[in-house]
Amino acid sequence: MIANAYYSHEMHEDFVLVSIGRLDLEEGGVLPDCRLAVRTWGRMNDAKDNVVLIPTWYSGTHQIWADAYVGPGHALDPERYFIVCVNQIGNGLSTSPHNTEDSSISMSRFPRVRIGDDVVAQERLMREHFGVERLALVVGGSMGAQQTYEWAVRFPKKVLRAAPIAGTAKNTPHDFLFTETLNEQIWSDPGWNGGEYASNTDVLDGLTRHAHLWGTMGFSTEFWKQQRWSDLGFSTQEAFLVDFLEPYFTAMDPNDLLTMAWKWQRGDVSRHTDGDLAAALGRITATTYVMPISEDMFFPVRDCAAEQALVPGSELRVIDDVSGHLGLFAVNAGFIPQVDRHLSDLLAVPRT
Amino acid sequence: MIANAYYSHEMHEDFVLVSIGRLDLEEGGVLPDCRLAVRTWGRMNDAKDNVVLIPTWYSGTHQIWADAYVGPGHALDPERYFIVCVNQIGNGLSTSPHNTEDSSISMSRFPRVRIGDDVVAQERLMREHFGVERLALVVGGSMGAQQTYEWAVRFPKKVLRAAPIAGTAKNTPHDFLFTETLNEQIWSDPGWNGGEYASNTDVLDGLTRHAHLWGTMGFSTEFWKQQRWSDLGFSTQEAFLVDFLEPYFTAMDPNDLLTMAWKWQRGDVSRHTDGDLAAALGRITATTYVMPISEDMFFPVRDCAAEQALVPGSELRVIDDVSGHLGLFAVNAGFIPQVDRHLSDLLAVPRT
Repeated sequence: MIANAYYSHEMHEDFVLVSIGRLDLEEGGVLPDCRLAVRTWGRMNDAKDNVVLIPTWYSGTHQIWADAYVGPGHALDPERYFIVCVNQIGNGLSTSPHNTEDSSISMSRFPRVRIGDDVVAQERLMREHFGVERLALVVGGSMGAQQTYEWAVRFPKKVLRAAPIAGTAKNTPHDFLFTETLNEQIWSDPGWNGGEYASNTDVLDGLTRHAHLWGTMGFSTEFWKQQRWSDLGFSTQEAFLVDFLEPYFTAMDPNDLLTMAWKWQRGDVSRHTDGDLAAALGRITATTYVMPISEDMFFPVRDCAAEQALVPGSELRVIDDVSGHLGLFAVNAGFIPQVDRHLSDLLAVPRT
Repeated sequence: MIANAYYSHEMHEDFVLVSIGRLDLEEGGVLPDCRLAVRTWGRMNDAKDNVVLIPTWYSGTHQIWADAYVGPGHALDPERYFIVCVNQIGNGLSTSPHNTEDSSISMSRFPRVRIGDDVVAQERLMREHFGVERLALVVGGSMGAQQTYEWAVRFPKKVLRAAPIAGTAKNTPHDFLFTETLNEQIWSDPGWNGGEYASNTDVLDGLTRHAHLWGTMGFSTEFWKQQRWSDLGFSTQEAFLVDFLEPYFTAMDPNDLLTMAWKWQRGDVSRHTDGDLAAALGRITATTYVMPISEDMFFPVRDCAAEQALVPGSELRVIDDVSGHLGLFAVNAGFIPQVDRHLSDLLAVPRT
């Protein structure tokens, strides 16, 4: 366990750690005491039919959902819904390489975790901790979309509505390679030391290069051309890099990022159906809106649309945003209103 | 000067080194004896009106033009045209950091070179060495497109036809950042040693990561999804990476790549017009076909189309290729026939 101020209550509001006990992992490892960092908003009604689950994305936590997506006036309105955001395993708030006190799994010894492990852990949390058997909605972006698909395929009776945003049910070859280039920035930093560094600051160079790769693949060519960083109050491209992208990623823990990346690279609901993606997505009974971002460089609309076509009764709802994938950060003022509109429509679809 | 077998006559057919003498550079440096590696095909006619000039792209040499673009049956037919491919300064064949015997400019001491310097050098070569004042066509891909635009803007009376393929007249902010991530792979390798390595193999790790970035930005998401590497005879994605992309880039010289990258990042014909791109492109009198590649991830069609709209009398001729930018390697069998068709049309336009 090493100290990292980023993963603190000061930086992340109002979450609680909930132990779900021992978690046996798909790849054979074990988390002896799996703790999930959970942020909730609103109250569960007596019928328990107003529960929304949000899994998190790579590098993300519940905080971005608190800052941009959840609140009065949004589709995800705590006045109407009991909203549960569960930080994914390895994200630095839930059980992760850098924060576990269990030396058998800390740092470089952290076991391999899959998207399916997260969803199994979340299902246990919802059932045992919250007493919830059915979800009005599962919604997540990027790796959160991977978990959303996994939920809808693995537990079809438990998911009434699903909204995978800017992500895929089966990771693409290009995304595997892109993620590997992110990993390589960390691995190639001598300070990483095979995962046995004393502080994330030892890996500053690698994390900085990692941030730069997000600059060119996470944001679109048009984002940079139109200088849309000015929407966020930055005066130059360089300032946006140095004062936004670099601090964001260099604050994080390298092993935590690598743990999430390994999961991301192998996300694939067709593991349930011997590789038959159509069969896996055909299991989904949730009312599903597939919501890619128009300018996403690595989850392009066509990849999401091809999967959407395999989900019975689903709709393709493209979010028009010039920012690209990291439009998920709500960079553009037009982004959240579109998300709200689509999620409001989806939540209005009658389901029992 | 260090040895590197890649930049040899064994690997590169039929080129000659032509000294154009001292070259004073835009940034203030000097190449005391600038030598250009030149490959020619065909013969100049008496009217000297059948001359085609080809500048090269980042990492490229004349060899890819010999292998894929020039020959009987192609638009660039040596039976009809006198075709001159000039390797850009710093590409490892022309005067470059690794191959100069002049210790005042070798390795880390190599001066900064701009696209304009290349074009000035090429104009001098054509005029003084070949006695050519006007070019029937300038055609190049990527950085070759940058040089093509520079030719057409700087020497409008000398260029009758221009075909910039998969490149821009003014480099985009995104491209600057992408290129910087390529550079960072080299700079971050301890073996690079500030540019004072003993062999390119000292920088194997950095060059390998550099190759991987080309994998995700140079080829398109769809290239990987459709497994188009199989068109080149590879049986797996991994084999394509390890047996094609990695050997291609790791054979090269790191300082040479950095020299080209610095140029690429700053390519901008509006340097001639105080930053007014419309004014610069408005100078062009060449009949110009702007030829982006449909799936290019970093020279997207819209960026090329926006420039094309500023070139008087020009046409946009999109090359439909799923490969992305590195479709330039003629990966897809459908690529070269499209290039040939467009160049044949262009060469058929009467000009005097």
